[in-house]
Amino acid sequence: MSTEHLVIFTPSGKRGHFSAGTPILTAARQLGVDLDSVCGGRGICSKCQITPSYGEFSKHGVTVADDALSEWNKVEQRYKDKRGLIDGRRLGCQATVQGDIVIDVPPESQVHKQVVRKAATARTIIMDPATHLYFVQVEEPDMHSPTGDLERLQRALKTQWDIDGIRADAAILRKLQPILRKGKWQITVAVHQGHNDAHSRIIDVWSGLHEGGIYGLAIDLGSTTIAAHLCDLADGSVKASSGIMNPQIRFGEDLMSRVSYAMMNPGGDREMTKAVRVAINELTQEIAKEAEIDPWLIVENVFVCNPVMHHLLLGIDPVELGQAPFALTTSESLSLDARDLELTAMNSSGRIYILPCIAGHVGADAAAVALSEEPNKSEDLVLVVDVGTNAEILLGDKTRVLACSSPTGPAFEGAQISSGQRAAPGAIERIEIDAETKEPRFRVIGSDLWSNEDGFAEVTAVSGITGICGSGIIEAVAEMRMAGLLDPSGLIGSAEQTGTARCIPEGRTNAYLIHDASADGGPTITVTQGDIRAIQLAKSALYAGARLLMDEMGVETVDRIVLAGAFGAHISTKHAMVLGMIPDAPLDKVSSAGNAAGTGARIALCNKASRVEIERTVVEITKVETAIEPKFQEHFVAASAIPHATATFPELSKIVDLPAVSFNTAGSNKEGGRRRKRRG
Amino acid sequence: MSTEHLVIFTPSGKRGHFSAGTPILTAARQLGVDLDSVCGGRGICSKCQITPSYGEFSKHGVTVADDALSEWNKVEQRYKDKRGLIDGRRLGCQATVQGDIVIDVPPESQVHKQVVRKAATARTIIMDPATHLYFVQVEEPDMHSPTGDLERLQRALKTQWDIDGIRADAAILRKLQPILRKGKWQITVAVHQGHNDAHSRIIDVWSGLHEGGIYGLAIDLGSTTIAAHLCDLADGSVKASSGIMNPQIRFGEDLMSRVSYAMMNPGGDREMTKAVRVAINELTQEIAKEAEIDPWLIVENVFVCNPVMHHLLLGIDPVELGQAPFALTTSESLSLDARDLELTAMNSSGRIYILPCIAGHVGADAAAVALSEEPNKSEDLVLVVDVGTNAEILLGDKTRVLACSSPTGPAFEGAQISSGQRAAPGAIERIEIDAETKEPRFRVIGSDLWSNEDGFAEVTAVSGITGICGSGIIEAVAEMRMAGLLDPSGLIGSAEQTGTARCIPEGRTNAYLIHDASADGGPTITVTQGDIRAIQLAKSALYAGARLLMDEMGVETVDRIVLAGAFGAHISTKHAMVLGMIPDAPLDKVSSAGNAAGTGARIALCNKASRVEIERTVVEITKVETAIEPKFQEHFVAASAIPHATATFPELSKIVDLPAVSFNTAGSNKEGGRRRKRRG
Repeated sequence: MSTEHLVIFTPSGKRGHFSAGTPILTAARQLGVDLDSVCGGRGICSKCQITPSYGEFSKHGVTVADDALSEWNKVEQRYKDKRGLIDGRRLGCQATVQGDIVIDVPPESQVHKQVVRKAATARTIIMDPATHLYFVQVEEPDMHSPTGDLERLQRALKTQWDIDGIRADAAILRKLQPILRKGKWQITVAVHQGHNDAHSRIIDVWSGLHEGGIYGLAIDLGSTTIAAHLCDLADGSVKASSGIMNPQIRFGEDLMSRVSYAMMNPGGDREMTKAVRVAINELTQEIAKEAEIDPWLIVENVFVCNPVMHHLLLGIDPVELGQAPFALTTSESLSLDARDLELTAMNSSGRIYILPCIAGHVGADAAAVALSEEPNKSEDLVLVVDVGTNAEILLGDKTRVLACSSPTGPAFEGAQISSGQRAAPGAIERIEIDAETKEPRFRVIGSDLWSNEDGFAEVTAVSGITGICGSGIIEAVAEMRMAGLLDPSGLIGSAEQTGTARCIPEGRTNAYLIHDASADGGPTITVTQGDIRAIQLAKSALYAGARLLMDEMGVETVDRIVLAGAFGAHISTKHAMVLGMIPDAPLDKVSSAGNAAGTGARIALCNKASRVEIERTVVEITKVETAIEPKFQEHFVAASAIPHATATFPELSKIVDLPAVSFNTAGSNKEGGRRRKRRG
Repeated sequence: MSTEHLVIFTPSGKRGHFSAGTPILTAARQLGVDLDSVCGGRGICSKCQITPSYGEFSKHGVTVADDALSEWNKVEQRYKDKRGLIDGRRLGCQATVQGDIVIDVPPESQVHKQVVRKAATARTIIMDPATHLYFVQVEEPDMHSPTGDLERLQRALKTQWDIDGIRADAAILRKLQPILRKGKWQITVAVHQGHNDAHSRIIDVWSGLHEGGIYGLAIDLGSTTIAAHLCDLADGSVKASSGIMNPQIRFGEDLMSRVSYAMMNPGGDREMTKAVRVAINELTQEIAKEAEIDPWLIVENVFVCNPVMHHLLLGIDPVELGQAPFALTTSESLSLDARDLELTAMNSSGRIYILPCIAGHVGADAAAVALSEEPNKSEDLVLVVDVGTNAEILLGDKTRVLACSSPTGPAFEGAQISSGQRAAPGAIERIEIDAETKEPRFRVIGSDLWSNEDGFAEVTAVSGITGICGSGIIEAVAEMRMAGLLDPSGLIGSAEQTGTARCIPEGRTNAYLIHDASADGGPTITVTQGDIRAIQLAKSALYAGARLLMDEMGVETVDRIVLAGAFGAHISTKHAMVLGMIPDAPLDKVSSAGNAAGTGARIALCNKASRVEIERTVVEITKVETAIEPKFQEHFVAASAIPHATATFPELSKIVDLPAVSFNTAGSNKEGGRRRKRRG
């Protein structure tokens, strides 16, 4: 019997005794140490790099001799010559135990890497996607014991990776034979193990060791914009992010107009389904191009969306969502093939996961926000507001979570705004107005410079200054109010009333001029009275939804507020409060989470256990229906002012001093205020 | 507590005690009595009809009073008025127990009906298809407890039918909402539970009680012909049978020519795949039309086919099957969606089952023959020969089964025969030649009359007499040999040599005239020397395959022989023996089984347990490879004569006395005999 040596892995601290000659990779696997390998220990994938430590380790009570590992071997040398290997690193599959040893597993060698997210409060993502790569050596066929190539591949996956009961679709069967022969019976297999599938399935096969990686798309399918992150499924890194307008806008700006379109036009739902699928295919190609990867390597998509987009994506007529009792076709999560949704730009055997819906008006996007922001695990009472054409609002703590959806309309996404545009280079995303001079300065997406700083003209020369995005319009309106250009009722003062020539007449009302490039043939960017009205409607709906949940919960204040939105960058919490979008709260208790729904999609993409988690969570969330609740209407009507009632904003008044102006004079109040329509 | 009464069911003999008021259907279910119901006891499907018996039953030790069942009720009366009900019948869901009672379950009320097959030796099929219909009452949606329509349907299937974990594809999701509402929340669901699926799936939904039935196709996909049976999945009855030529013939008559076509022509495999799928779609429409059903009601297809057809159906390049080691892409059974194979003529959510293959040359058709003829359960040694373009040959008993495939070419299917045609109305399928007069008489498909019987001209007026099908050519050649028109080497004698003017010169050889309608513009049907040569090649290959298995088994004779073939009706066993297609055996030990592969497909369609069974059986069958076995070639060369060596046919010589003729004279032996090519 050979001698047993102590092997200690750091940082996990796992330890065990192994006989001389045991490869470090084998020891790691037996101890459950998280050491990666795609090639299964053949010395070709280099995923199992480890760093041995030598000398005395009093902490571990062990002394490591210089010859505690087998000598550096040819396979390692060949790998180092060809691809490079950091000094001190060994390949875990080549180095074998020869004495007591301490082995460090560097972060990049861990299978279940942690993806560090930017926001400090946000959860980390543990990498464990549904699809992984495996390198296998398949037995060659033998006429005398006839089995199919697939059956021998199944056996290889079982013996080399302990993966059972795998299935392959017709597309994989079609390509398997030439791939096996080209790879000389060594192939890389992408295996998908769904969290609620009884069988694993082969998503793709490559000859030899596939080094091109596999990718997934996390898609936030909004009413107005479609935003996607392209993630590397090995480490969760975001390789590219991109967004396009939802082409369904031409059938109706808000959800209820689209439901109406489907009701009024036979086949209208199919038109909208086709439009959105085509757009997703275009976005897939575009984002792959940006990341410089073959779109075929995209093997998984995760979708989050509101119920109407959910149905239209699936090809279901959304008519039932337009009328009480707002019955969904299905509220559970869906696992589908890419071809079921005609997503032809990605891998044809790729898999789609759609998060569960909470109710007929509270969709998979709300579920994704819950997955990202975890109100159900919060110690204090948190209000999570996801701002979009439809706002998803969650209120709760670890004892109970309420959810509703509020029809804000697309104003917050830059639509229905005269100079509005989607968040893209050239769009104004930040704005400040000097309270004395009433002069604005601003920043556009793609540059860190303010418009009054040196070099601004040069860096914006390419993109131009094209309009105002969602987060920009929130700041603009709030800044106008703080600078005394806007009275609490939402009227813009005239040049006379405000003392600045930037307040220009527009019809019977006034507009505030932010940027005028008309001399150079560029746009004139203003905030008009109509824009203010659109924002007032949107923010009233948002506020009313939040208040409805607070009523239901029986509270007058919340402990903290998380503001999220798919559009643009993070929303300015201060400006949101000035606007009266959200209930009053101490400013340091209001945080901005970026695209929380998109983050939820990314979590579900990178970690399949999170799919199980959110499916369990949504059934415990209590849905509150805004559409039939008279109180919602009351809150909505009462919330029009900016902010709607200073008395109820004690925290806000601590940080800003809003000018007591009133422009409600004969000359400026005849504008035809748009009537609010329900936007679903 | 209510009184318990004895309920006895016949013919099962199952009995139990039930309290007064228990519906008979409920009692049957609790006892596991096989009593059908689609509507779940709502009195609308009438599947649960039963016949109560009254009076004294000494056998059962019970006396049944007149009031042992509840009174005839309104639901029964309404059903009887609307659809009719045989006197004495009751609805099992309406009639309740009121006293001791004897209940007979008529055959048509049993779920697991037995399908009686014509051949006495053949196994009966117990009806238990993978897809069943269920009628359910679904809860209406409620805004205050939001769940999707699918989730409420799932719950209904669980509570009303105890069916768990059901899934629905995108097509079902798309139609579910309107169907539910149209049916006022009562719908019929076709549920598929695959024998190796973890989840049931919804195949289709109908508003209210669907009375149109559901159907399945059992398809024998041969190299030359595609034959299908359309079966009612409720009772297994064959509603229509139809066949068409395999359009791949234009790419090559035999399998190896098609493999060559794929090798020589880039994209050639895809052309052939497309051709066969289009043909299956056409056949589906045709057979549905014949049965007067909506092809959409076809929810399952079972395919049996040889390995090359298997790959071409699946869209896999068959190139590997053309060269040793003849590796299949997959040998296991396949369960697929109809859309995976572009089978657009049937239900779009329909399911496909393809039987497993045994080896690279021994396909799912051989497996189907094994399922139908069950050599693995035989007490005596049975040789099963399935005649087609490729013959599947099985030899064995319950201890061991061997299988091989032999490349007979398409002659037995009427192809490569001058007057050959597929088995269709107008084709000669039976023929007799008078040994004295040398005059033929024949029968054509579609008529029971012989050509020399009164009325033959009238009944064949519509179809005409168009050619000879596979079983007809076997008889024709054997009859020619028995009538002394053909010598043992296979030469046709001249008019002079045979003494009949029906032997007419054709080039340097002779032909035998069977039917001449040229005066009426019809065809001249002859058997030419070339036809004889094609049949000789085919039968030698068949015989050589059978002999190879006998060698492998170490036997000189077999106990019995089963002759099967997809073409035409049953093969004449006597003629097959005269021809030397099969080894010598007592004539009463040779039986004809018709299309055994097609029957195997039908069994797999009607009984899902048989799928499990055949998947287990095939792995126990020993495959013998003809392509690389020198002995096969030896047997082949030695088997050319008709019959090839009288000495080895002691049993045959007991029943026929073959004339000792020889036409091997200068004038008739110069015909250029075709060279045999391997046909795969």
